[in-house]
This record gives sequence, C-alpha cells and structure tokens, in this order.
Amino acid sequence: MKFLQSVFSINSEMVNGELVIGGCKSSLLAKEFGTPLFIIDENDFNTRLKSWKSALDRHFGAQAGTVYYASKSFISIEVAKWISSSGIGIDVCSGGELAVALAANFDPAKIELHGNNKSEAEIRSAIKAGVAKIVIDSHQEIERVNRIAKEFGVIQTVLIRLTPGVEAHTHEFISTAHEDVKFGFSISSGDATKAAQEVEALANLHLAGIHCHIGSQIFESEGFETAATRLIEFLAQFRDRNSRELPELDLGGGYGVAYVEGETTYDPDLAMSAIASLVKDQCAKHKLVVPTVSIEPGRAISAPTTTTLYEVGTTKNVTLDEGGIRRYIAVDGGMSDNIRPALYGAEYSALLANRTSTSSEISSRLVGKHCESGDIIIREIDLPSDIGPGDLIAIPTTGAYGRSMASNYNHMPRPAVVAVNDGTARVILRRETQEDLLSLDVTEAPRVIN
Amino acid sequence: MKFLQSVFSINSEMVNGELVIGGCKSSLLAKEFGTPLFIIDENDFNTRLKSWKSALDRHFGAQAGTVYYASKSFISIEVAKWISSSGIGIDVCSGGELAVALAANFDPAKIELHGNNKSEAEIRSAIKAGVAKIVIDSHQEIERVNRIAKEFGVIQTVLIRLTPGVEAHTHEFISTAHEDVKFGFSISSGDATKAAQEVEALANLHLAGIHCHIGSQIFESEGFETAATRLIEFLAQFRDRNSRELPELDLGGGYGVAYVEGETTYDPDLAMSAIASLVKDQCAKHKLVVPTVSIEPGRAISAPTTTTLYEVGTTKNVTLDEGGIRRYIAVDGGMSDNIRPALYGAEYSALLANRTSTSSEISSRLVGKHCESGDIIIREIDLPSDIGPGDLIAIPTTGAYGRSMASNYNHMPRPAVVAVNDGTARVILRRETQEDLLSLDVTEAPRVIN
Repeated sequence: MKFLQSVFSINSEMVNGELVIGGCKSSLLAKEFGTPLFIIDENDFNTRLKSWKSALDRHFGAQAGTVYYASKSFISIEVAKWISSSGIGIDVCSGGELAVALAANFDPAKIELHGNNKSEAEIRSAIKAGVAKIVIDSHQEIERVNRIAKEFGVIQTVLIRLTPGVEAHTHEFISTAHEDVKFGFSISSGDATKAAQEVEALANLHLAGIHCHIGSQIFESEGFETAATRLIEFLAQFRDRNSRELPELDLGGGYGVAYVEGETTYDPDLAMSAIASLVKDQCAKHKLVVPTVSIEPGRAISAPTTTTLYEVGTTKNVTLDEGGIRRYIAVDGGMSDNIRPALYGAEYSALLANRTSTSSEISSRLVGKHCESGDIIIREIDLPSDIGPGDLIAIPTTGAYGRSMASNYNHMPRPAVVAVNDGTARVILRRETQEDLLSLDVTEAPRVIN
Repeated sequence: MKFLQSVFSINSEMVNGELVIGGCKSSLLAKEFGTPLFIIDENDFNTRLKSWKSALDRHFGAQAGTVYYASKSFISIEVAKWISSSGIGIDVCSGGELAVALAANFDPAKIELHGNNKSEAEIRSAIKAGVAKIVIDSHQEIERVNRIAKEFGVIQTVLIRLTPGVEAHTHEFISTAHEDVKFGFSISSGDATKAAQEVEALANLHLAGIHCHIGSQIFESEGFETAATRLIEFLAQFRDRNSRELPELDLGGGYGVAYVEGETTYDPDLAMSAIASLVKDQCAKHKLVVPTVSIEPGRAISAPTTTTLYEVGTTKNVTLDEGGIRRYIAVDGGMSDNIRPALYGAEYSALLANRTSTSSEISSRLVGKHCESGDIIIREIDLPSDIGPGDLIAIPTTGAYGRSMASNYNHMPRPAVVAVNDGTARVILRRETQEDLLSLDVTEAPRVIN
C-alpha cells in the first residue's frame, strides 16, 4: 500500500509511517476530535481557489469574469469566509446556501443564484440581499424574478441557463440535438431564443448573458468545444436580432478530479487555456467581442482538500463462491457520511493512516456500520492483512458531496469537519450529538384540519 | 390518472377530487404545515403493527416470539410510543436508534440491538439499558459483548447472526454457498458453528438462538424456505453438539410492499402461514422442538402509512431526440427527502392531490429542486397536462427510508412529519429551520496538535 500523493491534499505526507495532514498527525486528530472525521486542508483549499482564479485571469485577460465556487459541493460559514477572502465569487442554489454565504458576510456582488425551481421566497431573499446575478432556468421564473424585482424597485441582472445538447461525463461526451434534463432552455428547439426575447422585453430584468453546465468529472476540453460553439452561435444570433451583444458567458463547472490511481486532476491552467482558445476562435468566427467568461468549479476545489478518517471496528474473511477470500473491514461511518459509492458507484482510495504495516496485502472491501448490505465505501481494494480494530483508515478526496450530502440514516450523528493548517486544527462544523438528533421530535396537541 | 388505493395508506380517499388522508384535506395540510410534507396515517401504522403481531401469533401459537419493528426504516419518539403501546418490540441498530426508543420509555425487554460494527459505547448503552437481546455479528463482538456484560455484572442474552447463503430481492432469490456480505457468520464455512461454540463458552453471554435477514422487497416464501432449511439444520447440529436446543429463531424482515400499480403488498397472514409451515416441517424433520420465532418487519409497516406532499414550482416540455415530448414537473423537494429513486432506481406512484383535472395525460418526469440532473422522483409517469405551479403532488408509500435517509443537500431543511388521524393533524417531527442548519457552524481558535 503506497501513499498516493495525487489523491491527497497538498499538505498531506507520510511521516514515520503515519499520515500527517497540515502538520497534524492522524492519530492525534482522531484522539482530539473523534472519528469519523472530515479533515480539510485549509491551505490547499485556498491554493485551489487561487489557482482557478489565476488560470481564468491568465487566459482570458480583460475578459476574465468571476470564479464562482459551487457551494453545493461543500459549504460552511467558515469556508464561505475563505472564499470571500480570496476575492472569489460563490454560486448558491437554494435559500439555505444563500443563508450560509450571507452569514459569512459574503459580498452580494459576488453571489450568483442558481436552481431549476427556486421558490418565490428564495428569489425574494436573493434580490433583497442584492445578489449579482440570478440564473433563470424556466419561463415561469422569468415572470417571477421580474415581478419580485419590481416589488423591490430594482432591475435585476440575470443570465439565462441554456442546454446546448452536450452531456459530458469523465472521458466520454455525448452531443445531442436536445437535452433531456430538467435544467434550462433548449437552444435547438428555439426555447432559448424565446426566453431571451421574453427577458429582453421585461423592465425589471437586465439580461447580461448566458449560462450552461455540461456535466461533471470532465477531464478534456472536447465537451466544452461543442458547447462553446453552440453558445457563441446563440450569442451571434442574439446580436443579429437585438442589435446588442450579450457581455457575459458562464460556462459552469464539471472539471474532474482524481479519486484513484491512474486518474489525473484536470489542471486549471490546461482547462482555461483550452477553453479560452475555443471561445476566442468562435467569437472571431462570428465577429463578436469576446464576452466576460465566468466559471463555477466546486468539486475541483473542495474534493481534493478533504480526507475522511475512520476507525476500524470489526473485520471478517468471506470465502467467495468463485474461490478466494474477501476481507471485510468495517469502519465507524459509511453511507451516512459518504453516499457517493452507493449513489454513483464512485471509487475512492484508502490508506492505513496510523502506522506502517509489513503484512502482505489482500483483497478487501471497506464497509460502513449501517444496517444495509449496500453500505460499502470501497468495493475492492488491496489492504494489509493485519488491519484490525483500532486502526485508522484515511479516505482522501472526500471534500465534495460527502458532508454536503450526509444524512442521519440509522440516527448516526454527522461527523465534525476540522480545518488543519500548519500543525493546528480547529472545528469548523461541530459533530452532531444525540441531543441534536432528537431536537426535531415534538409533542403537539392534534389540530383539527377542516 | 386514477387513485390507486393499494399504494396509499388505509385512510386515504379522494373526496370531491381532492386527496384526503386521515380525514384531512391535502390542501389544508399544505396550508397549515407547508410543503414538502410527510403525512403519516397513524391509524394505518397501528393497524399494520397489529396485523403483523396477530399473523405471527396465529400461525406460530405458543411459539410466536416478538415482532421487532425495524426502526431503520423510520423512527421518531412519537412513533416509538405507538409501537410500545401496541405491545410490539423494536429493532435498533445504532446508539442513536436506541436513544430514540429510550426517550419514548420503550420497555428494554422488547428492544433488540443489531449492527455489523457496534461501537463499545453502543454495546455499553444497550447493556446498561437492559435490552432483551444483542444480535452478535462478528467474532470481535463476541469478546466485546462478553467483556462489557461482565463489567455490568450481567449475563447478556444474545443471538448470533448467520448468513445462510440466500439473497432475496423482490421476485428473484439467489441461493449461494457463501454470502458475500458484511453481515454475520457463514454457515457453510463453519464460521457460524465456531461462533456458537465461542459464545457458549463465555460466562457473561447466554446464547438464546440464531438470526438471519435474507433481503428486502420479498413477495414470496421461496427465499425463506432455503434459509429456514439451512438455519434449522444448523439448530439440529447445535443440539447434537451441545445437548441442548436453542430456543429462539429470528427470521428478520424484508416483506415487500407495493409502490406502483401491478405490485401487491405481501400479506402478513400469507407470509406467516408459509413461514410457519416451513419452520414446523424442518423442525419435525430434525426432531427439534419448534423454537420461538421472531420477525423484524420495518418497511412492511412504515412504507405504506406515509405520503409525501409536494408543491409544483415549474414545468417545461422537452422534445426528445427519439421524437415525442417529455414534460418536466419540478416540485419543492427531491433527493434530499427521498434518495431512493436515485440510490436504488426505486419506483413510485404520484397523484394530483388538490383538484380533479380533465386534461389529457402526457408522459411526464417528476423532478426535485436540487442542483443535480439525477434529482428525479419518478422517471416516467403519465400525468395531466395542465399540472402547473401551485398544484400539489402526492407521492404515496414514502414512509420507509424517506425521512430516515433524508439529507440537507443544498442546505435544504428536512420536511416536517405530521401524523393525521380522524380529521386532526399534529407535527411529530418538526420542519428544520435555517437556524437549525447553521447550528453546527462554529468558530474555534486553532488548537496545536502534536
């Protein structure tokens, strides 16, 4: 079992056989804060924020727009402060995510509101807060945002979300005429043009540009190429129809990160270099001024910064029907703190974190403690055969969609998130208690409903 | 669109084109408590609890053991009180679920503790509370439970969980030599025998019997037949080896419920009748006294009692590449309150709940409001083409693994659970607030870790 630096946060290292993150030993973190534990490498998070910003700035120059961190991947008040301090924007897609940003005193001029079905209350909160942009996702929402902006006596800057007929996943991408998804306005059906004209006609909306998001875990520019071609063609048609150019283009996120050996995290500089060429070429073709380009990396920033630390509780060997042995190693968390393996078939790496082992490695399955056969963290991995109760297992790259999708399944308290930096650690999201879990239970007198 | 009584709770009916549950109109429930809303039919829940108990009693007579409600499917303090009042037991598989039962003053003599990786703290809490049984799942746990029982100066009654080489899912079942799961001791490998002898030898454990759980959504007795054959053979071998008969057999849960048209909920009477015959035949074959038989229905009780009520926010029509139109209907919840469609490909029914529609039905997809393409509640369903913003959609059979697996993904507050009965409604789990969601965010000074 080797330490795979490429899937651990920047400030992770093996020191005397023990995993040390941000200068803090795994064993001491477990002792101080308990397990399961999310350990976020603060310096790494800030480094990745800046690397996306500088890559965007470098390749787009004066046309560089805003890096909006996609908060759905993971957000807390403290993390929102880091983002705010980096001069980077934030993409929120619910009233709850907006509330986190506002609690961190995030500059509303750097907040963007997303969502395929924003409630009127969410739109109201966003306009009241003065968010920079609302990304409009449906015809019904055009009327709603305009009406609420009018109530507040403001002209709300908006983008419209378009579906360019591209679905990108990992190394594959599919180009279709239509996109069979709940989000946005279809370009090919003419729906996008209709939406743009509707927005143009309304007094309390200012259409600044267009938005798309083509998928997730993308490692190549191929999908972006098709999207950019179709989007910029749309911008040209808009100019021809309305005698003005839309100044903004938001290309969303989806930049891939390495979870296991053999994968390579999409380098911000490579990604932005490729996308800038595509955008500039297409604009030249259509004689358009290059618009201000914004992006929305979420996972690309948060995922690699965080490691989950578990303690092993039980092990057992199972003889397989096809012959051979599978070793089950059960830890003190599972699908409540990381639903991705069960939900998406996602793969992860793992490391014995508290000591060196010289035992031979055997085919193992890392499982959780939930009352469900599908509660598997890693389906198949070679791990030292002497791993046993009390050992610590580290799973890297858990910063995105781990804590943010965590549940209380089996009434399990959600783990704490601890930020480490330079030999220090501090809790930024505290561990839930049994009291927290019972705090929603109420005894009410029946109300007559009629 | 017709009202499918078979997938709604017993006290659900259509009155003047509106869904009424427990005498409460959907529109008034939505107005009073907001949406999304879990509506649990209290009388139905109690009826199902009793029907499983009476079916077990009827077919096993003096050998009827305990119905342990599987709390992982859904539990709250109030629901635990209903279960307790019915004289039925509860199966908990974590310290958190145990805490709920204890907060409801559940009789410890009717509590059973499960789990493939119980922590020492959980075992300690259970023994301290005086739970009836601990179901031991691994060799490490034999030593742990014995040691902790000794600390308390008690002899703990335990079962051992066995894997009989049966996997049952819906209408299929697979019989294997070994079971490639994290739970229990394999019969075929000899591990189960070894575990039984280890438990027999320890002073602070009393081995009362054996346990197995063969799967979920089972509609036929076929899987139970293979399991019962192998388990009772094991009981006979135990008798031959130890000159005493184990008095208890716990056959777990997994009884299927109807989610969509064409499915039929497994009738408790049919299930118990079939299983009683199997058990009695096998015991006669091996000249064993019929053991006390317990069961653990969870979903079979909770799922059909509960309906989720959503409000529609947006709709859109998408032209499909293969021709035709798909209508997207977006509601105000989604994968945060029901992960089952995304996690298991689970299917559900839906109903326009607040009014009658005479519009023709069109191919629709019911989606949530999360920032994710996979946030789909029903992939394909015919619904009236005039469903629009403000309409209420009811999804029946959401009582199991809905609220219990709910997350705060996208910082969405988890919905309230309201118990309805005879024209009245009362909140039993309150809706989360933004304040609740921010209550785990803390600002701490860094601690030096070394």
